[in-house]
Amino acid sequence: MARPDGLVTESPVFTSHVGGKLTVRSTLPLTDRAALSLAYTPGVAEVSAAIAADEQLAERYTWRSRLVAVVSDGTAVLGLGDIGPAAALPVMEGKAALFAEFAGLNSVPIVLATTDTQEIIDTVVRIAPSFGGINLEDISAPRCFEIERRLRELLPIPVFHDDQHGTAIVVLAALRNAAQLTGRSLAELRVVISGAGAAGVACAKILLAAGVTELVVTDSRGILHPDRHDLNPVKREVAASTNPSGRQGNVTEALAGADVFIGVSGGNVTEPAVAGMARDCIIFALANPTPEVAPAVAHRYAAVVATGRSDLPNQINNVLAFPGVFAGTFDAGAPRITEGMKLAAAGAIGGVVAGELRPDRIVPTPFDPRVAPAVRDAVAEQARAEGIASR
Amino acid sequence: MARPDGLVTESPVFTSHVGGKLTVRSTLPLTDRAALSLAYTPGVAEVSAAIAADEQLAERYTWRSRLVAVVSDGTAVLGLGDIGPAAALPVMEGKAALFAEFAGLNSVPIVLATTDTQEIIDTVVRIAPSFGGINLEDISAPRCFEIERRLRELLPIPVFHDDQHGTAIVVLAALRNAAQLTGRSLAELRVVISGAGAAGVACAKILLAAGVTELVVTDSRGILHPDRHDLNPVKREVAASTNPSGRQGNVTEALAGADVFIGVSGGNVTEPAVAGMARDCIIFALANPTPEVAPAVAHRYAAVVATGRSDLPNQINNVLAFPGVFAGTFDAGAPRITEGMKLAAAGAIGGVVAGELRPDRIVPTPFDPRVAPAVRDAVAEQARAEGIASR
Repeated sequence: MARPDGLVTESPVFTSHVGGKLTVRSTLPLTDRAALSLAYTPGVAEVSAAIAADEQLAERYTWRSRLVAVVSDGTAVLGLGDIGPAAALPVMEGKAALFAEFAGLNSVPIVLATTDTQEIIDTVVRIAPSFGGINLEDISAPRCFEIERRLRELLPIPVFHDDQHGTAIVVLAALRNAAQLTGRSLAELRVVISGAGAAGVACAKILLAAGVTELVVTDSRGILHPDRHDLNPVKREVAASTNPSGRQGNVTEALAGADVFIGVSGGNVTEPAVAGMARDCIIFALANPTPEVAPAVAHRYAAVVATGRSDLPNQINNVLAFPGVFAGTFDAGAPRITEGMKLAAAGAIGGVVAGELRPDRIVPTPFDPRVAPAVRDAVAEQARAEGIASR
Repeated sequence: MARPDGLVTESPVFTSHVGGKLTVRSTLPLTDRAALSLAYTPGVAEVSAAIAADEQLAERYTWRSRLVAVVSDGTAVLGLGDIGPAAALPVMEGKAALFAEFAGLNSVPIVLATTDTQEIIDTVVRIAPSFGGINLEDISAPRCFEIERRLRELLPIPVFHDDQHGTAIVVLAALRNAAQLTGRSLAELRVVISGAGAAGVACAKILLAAGVTELVVTDSRGILHPDRHDLNPVKREVAASTNPSGRQGNVTEALAGADVFIGVSGGNVTEPAVAGMARDCIIFALANPTPEVAPAVAHRYAAVVATGRSDLPNQINNVLAFPGVFAGTFDAGAPRITEGMKLAAAGAIGGVVAGELRPDRIVPTPFDPRVAPAVRDAVAEQARAEGIASR
């Protein structure tokens, strides 16, 4: 097979990626015998012996208590889909770079040569003593749900599937502010989520937890409702807990009269469907690079518009959530990230711009330096309030 | 169980270890939208798409081609033995710090929650797409032999058990120089290796490959010979390829008239046993912190003495080998580390001090800045000479 060199361009994207994007360095000098005797043998033996006698000491005397594994099997990478572990690696390196840059946390990309649910679980459990937390990334639905659930049961450290919860946290923050800006409460809004993958399911759960009641979720075959016989167990659960009015039909029918559209599907919503939404509607079209609703169309009908794009206002970007979520969880020494901690993170993100709300500023930009510390502190405080903090 | 806090002291060892010894940072700035668009979305998607079409591009556009996993199950850590993965972590962090400091390589400690041979192999195979090389560390014999052998068969990247080959490379370098200093060739020396674990077995193999013929290896029950019925398969293989004179007996009997003692056992050799060695003998007593032969006793009889201790001359330390071995293998893009590359590494280490040999300078110190580049270049050159280099 010929090498498709044509995919590699002269673009700065490629030149900037040569050699990758991460580096591991020692925080101690190793430049003479005395330094080596402290950091390595013989000194390190004292530290190892102490941890062997009391494993809790590893939290203090190793790097793992603030180290995240960014784990992916490469099956649901960006808009590219199942591209495998090697091709997923640049994305995971980028994620690790964001952990470092936005929260000062160490993290390591771990891409896997398996897509088998049980093998992924076994592998993560076996490498877990190396890490303080597990960030699952770009693992396709529905396997991602079982993998996260079972790892949470098996491991004493936080496990967080960012495609689910990172997105959900930022969507909730944005929706709260959009509702406030348009003079409504979450409970008054009729919400449609287009997409029942990782992000859609998690958005549904967090919105229900935050007080949304009139909520329907659609997949490629239309509205999820309990009479459908083509649903996997996760979608069945969503169908059972949403759609209180028993709606059926496609996205256009779902949107008729709806107040909020949240697109996490990558599909395309026509202008007539958008035109059927309620007055002062709110549109979050998050597919990247092509939003489900063209921004020009969205602005024709909606009071507030958000996308996932960095070149438009109101970017719904997970980077607002995950660095602070892990930093706060580590600060508190919490063994898991609870629903309450996710809600606290959403509150903190929204709170950063609460005093300066505008239709084009319902969330902070990714570079707002107030965000990560606010999320970190809110998450740690919530962990302590729930009694699961160890520091 | 009470916390044995007494193990933690006010020593600088503990204060310097707080928070661990490593940090992961981004090599690209992420401080504005343009930078984020290059390093992360949307730019990174171009890189991922290119690698998805041609996996070889991962070597150029990710960090993995120069990234080492330092993998341990914590079963044979320093002199401490089977202390588990958490207690092994400070040692693996130290190893990663040495890779960074001495060869500028990135590496990541991976400590495992399993000691099962097959599970270790499966786990390393599954995380292997994240890395450019695997450094196995402090895994007890005889499992370490099978784990390394099978990973070498299964993986397209170099796999190196440092406790075996790092030690063997430095021992060969030291022995060549000690022999030269005392006017003998390796083929003339009668050599006794005390210890048939990871280091002992590897030392035996490399010395045979380098031309030693009169070699016996002892374990805790005495000299390995084919008539013994208590040998595991690895020791049987050693017994079959060494001991050409069919010697039997304990270490003292092995040492009678021997030219070289290489201790990698942690045992204790009495003065009468040492007194029975040949004139101008060579003693490498490498157990740490207590050499098998007390240095004062060794100097009473030997022409050249080496230990593993950093506070004595002639320190036989793996750090002379492993940073350059991996750097050279990566420079050449070689898929494995061959016997020839190990011999080349030994030659380079010894060569650094070839012009300045003295009884107390048969190997360079760990801080000699000439060592890692010399080893790196010799290893890369050998890989190219063997036709296994890809760059």
